[in-house]
Amino acid sequence: MSNEYQNTLELLKQLQINFYHRDFLLTWEQTNDELKAVTLVAELFKNLHKAGISLKSYDTGLAISIFRDNSTRTRFSFASAANALGLGLCDLDEEKSQIAHGETVRETSNMISFLAEIVGIRDDMFLGEGNKYMREFGAAIQEGYEQGILHQRPSIVNLQCDIDHPTQSLADLMQLKNTFGSLENLRGKKIAMTWAYSPSYGKPLSVPQGIIGLMTRFGMDVSLAHPEGYGLIPEVVELAKKQSAQHGGKFEVVTSMEEAFKGADIVYPKSWAPYHVMQRRTVLLNNNDKPGLKELEKECLANNAKFKNWECHEKNMMLTKNGEALYMHCLPADISGVSCTEGEVARNVFEKYRIATYAEASYKPFVIAAIMFLMRMQSPVEKLQAIVSRNQKRSL
Amino acid sequence: MSNEYQNTLELLKQLQINFYHRDFLLTWEQTNDELKAVTLVAELFKNLHKAGISLKSYDTGLAISIFRDNSTRTRFSFASAANALGLGLCDLDEEKSQIAHGETVRETSNMISFLAEIVGIRDDMFLGEGNKYMREFGAAIQEGYEQGILHQRPSIVNLQCDIDHPTQSLADLMQLKNTFGSLENLRGKKIAMTWAYSPSYGKPLSVPQGIIGLMTRFGMDVSLAHPEGYGLIPEVVELAKKQSAQHGGKFEVVTSMEEAFKGADIVYPKSWAPYHVMQRRTVLLNNNDKPGLKELEKECLANNAKFKNWECHEKNMMLTKNGEALYMHCLPADISGVSCTEGEVARNVFEKYRIATYAEASYKPFVIAAIMFLMRMQSPVEKLQAIVSRNQKRSL
Amino acid sequence: MSNEYQNTLELLKQLQINFYHRDFLLTWEQTNDELKAVTLVAELFKNLHKAGISLKSYDTGLAISIFRDNSTRTRFSFASAANALGLGLCDLDEEKSQIAHGETVRETSNMISFLAEIVGIRDDMFLGEGNKYMREFGAAIQEGYEQGILHQRPSIVNLQCDIDHPTQSLADLMQLKNTFGSLENLRGKKIAMTWAYSPSYGKPLSVPQGIIGLMTRFGMDVSLAHPEGYGLIPEVVELAKKQSAQHGGKFEVVTSMEEAFKGADIVYPKSWAPYHVMQRRTVLLNNNDKPGLKELEKECLANNAKFKNWECHEKNMMLTKNGEALYMHCLPADISGVSCTEGEVARNVFEKYRIATYAEASYKPFVIAAIMFLMRMQSPVEKLQAIVSRNQKRSL
Repeated sequence: MSNEYQNTLELLKQLQINFYHRDFLLTWEQTNDELKAVTLVAELFKNLHKAGISLKSYDTGLAISIFRDNSTRTRFSFASAANALGLGLCDLDEEKSQIAHGETVRETSNMISFLAEIVGIRDDMFLGEGNKYMREFGAAIQEGYEQGILHQRPSIVNLQCDIDHPTQSLADLMQLKNTFGSLENLRGKKIAMTWAYSPSYGKPLSVPQGIIGLMTRFGMDVSLAHPEGYGLIPEVVELAKKQSAQHGGKFEVVTSMEEAFKGADIVYPKSWAPYHVMQRRTVLLNNNDKPGLKELEKECLANNAKFKNWECHEKNMMLTKNGEALYMHCLPADISGVSCTEGEVARNVFEKYRIATYAEASYKPFVIAAIMFLMRMQSPVEKLQAIVSRNQKRSL
Repeated sequence: MSNEYQNTLELLKQLQINFYHRDFLLTWEQTNDELKAVTLVAELFKNLHKAGISLKSYDTGLAISIFRDNSTRTRFSFASAANALGLGLCDLDEEKSQIAHGETVRETSNMISFLAEIVGIRDDMFLGEGNKYMREFGAAIQEGYEQGILHQRPSIVNLQCDIDHPTQSLADLMQLKNTFGSLENLRGKKIAMTWAYSPSYGKPLSVPQGIIGLMTRFGMDVSLAHPEGYGLIPEVVELAKKQSAQHGGKFEVVTSMEEAFKGADIVYPKSWAPYHVMQRRTVLLNNNDKPGLKELEKECLANNAKFKNWECHEKNMMLTKNGEALYMHCLPADISGVSCTEGEVARNVFEKYRIATYAEASYKPFVIAAIMFLMRMQSPVEKLQAIVSRNQKRSL
Repeated sequence: MSNEYQNTLELLKQLQINFYHRDFLLTWEQTNDELKAVTLVAELFKNLHKAGISLKSYDTGLAISIFRDNSTRTRFSFASAANALGLGLCDLDEEKSQIAHGETVRETSNMISFLAEIVGIRDDMFLGEGNKYMREFGAAIQEGYEQGILHQRPSIVNLQCDIDHPTQSLADLMQLKNTFGSLENLRGKKIAMTWAYSPSYGKPLSVPQGIIGLMTRFGMDVSLAHPEGYGLIPEVVELAKKQSAQHGGKFEVVTSMEEAFKGADIVYPKSWAPYHVMQRRTVLLNNNDKPGLKELEKECLANNAKFKNWECHEKNMMLTKNGEALYMHCLPADISGVSCTEGEVARNVFEKYRIATYAEASYKPFVIAAIMFLMRMQSPVEKLQAIVSRNQKRSL
């Protein structure tokens, strides 16, 4: 066994973790040790994959996905993670199911879980509902398990909700760990999580919330910037503040991209809808009020348009640490002159960091695989040891 | 090997069965021994799964599904069964295929079957067509096999047609076997298969037909109840009568839920469309006559509404054996005050039996896996013995 | 090991091939040795499959499909090939992805490829674009690989583009090889690739182009027939001419089905849209110009209707070699009196050769598996030897 693998396993053994048969819904419900464990296992998986080694951990079993919103990279990351562990994939396409037929969450959740190990859920459209749906799902399968209906209680992994996007923020964390050398090195580094202009509206708040909710755990200097009226869920902002104090970092909310960028080691310029707009939108979506939605969109786009100067470009990048801050994005970005006329980021800035954003995304399948693995294996370190020792090539 | 597993294998050895490379289309085309074999294998699979043992029976191979109507639980049951046996899943989405392009059944069936072991078909919308389609499909792949086109002839499993819903009725049978201790204990037990009010229309007849077509095989006292005009396919009712006489049970058709419930050990209140309505609907669907369908729906809902008192509630449940009959439903049920204002069953009755209906549903993946396994393995008992001896954990 | 398998492996060893980690986009970009290798491996796979032997070559891994047009047989062939080799399948449904959201090909291609071995693409709707898209995709993942983003560069297999349909034409070649005994025996055989009438329009040009681009490689006498105005892409016709001269065959373009049929050993009557119509259609499709498309369709169907006599029937089949030419079609065919009133082929002619066309189609899953295998295995002959020696039954 290579020393590198062995070192990772040794580090894992020192952590206090409690994942077994639980769900992964919000990073801030996990201890720092648990988050470290995710990054260590994800890194190990990535290295083993690069070396052509199979991560197969199941002879048979299902990973179920429920995507209540469009997705490319998370969908493929989830599918890739499931396949890598040896699980078959089964997607619940609600349009082809009988869910419209008045089925309840408590029922459906059990009906699809008889042979499932993992359920991955994306539900990010409705403020106040996505995370709630995941918890209702979890409570229902817990009941099914306790009542002897389910032989095992599958674990839920949050593939983006209205509050957090934990597999994204953890991929982002791994990119930072890799860029700056270690999680410890992130202490004192400034990250600017800032709103940016986009010609679309209604983008979820979960990415910026996920970032301020996670990075304040590692002693970073987190600067959240957005125009007036573009606030995030107040409870999450409060949490970030509290965590920041607790972990010896800084947290501020400022009202200009420039201020946030000043001296930043990392910038994360990304559009989102204002909290109160998402609240109004949720009501309209629930009522299927199309004219109302149209009206809201018009109003919002007009409001967004006042802030077209919130673009990340060469000039404001010069304000960052040595003019060389790491640019991050969860992708796809609204790139001025590429995917839209005016957007979140100037073409030349994006192009400079394009490969870096791909690297950032490349952690996601391994983060998801690591979370799945940790939630399902009773003795994960032993199992990892076995995978490493087995040294089975993916190609037979 | 545990004694329990060994006992099941001994029981299986005593049965005369002939599944190999055949289809499973109607329970009444199978002998009682064959139906017993399905329940025994399904039970064994369920117990092995509960013990964490892999049922993998294939190194590679495909299970193909064709869903011509929406489905949640049958879709996931089929996917789960395929995965448990080690088969990959491939769904024929007719909208994304070239079938609209004038392709014939005889051609498509062969084109998708080159590497298939199993084809699962749901086709329950068109009276007189679903089961016929399955047989045309079967005849076409039989020709393909005999002509040397297919290396193996895949087996078809009926995932609900216009006539029968065999994987549902067999899951129901397992629920009864489990509740009353044995198939033998079902002799003389009264089951009330009764129509119930629903605010929707056009529900298939295959569930009630499947129940009267199966339960009359086990010496049960089967009472079919429905309002005038809500008759089932006459041939199936005739068959139920004949089988009942043959197997020493009773069969009656009555015109009130109350009469059927009287002294019943089991009640199965479920809505369906009248036979003649389904016939008219089939013509309209074939002609894509949307105004005609709208008109028919209006007429039917108005007619249904005359029978809103056909609801299963605490009061009529008191008529059953000790007021404690087992409530059954294939799910999702129209629950008054939950999924609709007035429906098939009162909220408190459903809630009392909710977990029991989940248990009923939980047999389906194992019933499907058992049918698949029996149809594909030349020496199923030997193969089961091997699975039990191998004792391979699902989690590696 | 059977002598037959051993002979195939010996033949393979003698070929100069260079597939490893490359793409398979056009047959004329491959050497004759490489094409022979595909047919040999496909044949070996078909024989092993018939003998019940597993072709599993991967412990885990993904094959990704992107279908930008409807497909039944190619979709199932790809799924079957992936499953046979032990790869999981993941389909990119562009409607459910964020691609509409302004994502670029260079980005998406990397985002879905992190754990992919194979990407199969069908993109045949837009003249001048399908093959280009595949190459853009390939260049992007090449960059991703070189930049260290991808651990491995997946190989692309063309599942039909605007120029070629290589997995179809190679399945056709195998049908010819099997019918006439060997590839060598094809020398001097006359194949009539002719246009035929269809009541639809806008059919891709890739099949006839694929046939003249491939069969001119084997010394065949290739006769291309179509009405005036129904020409193929000029460059491909030029290529066919050149290849034909090079490989000692013949190539002609004639203007009547009868002329092409005269003395033919093989006939391939199939409809396609005129090149210039596909060019106009591409512009209209890109502009989403629905009235324009309607108008073009009307005009084309009217033009097609002038050539209803371009039907393959008993009478013109009498012109072929002994009246017994092999009829070929990629399916589904427009069969007069079956799938349309008047079409490409008379009912009785199609019926006579129906099973032969199914046999032709039956090679496709194995052709795709062979291409996948050759592109991914560094030492394919050794690996094949291992599969043959392992002799693992598909059914465990």
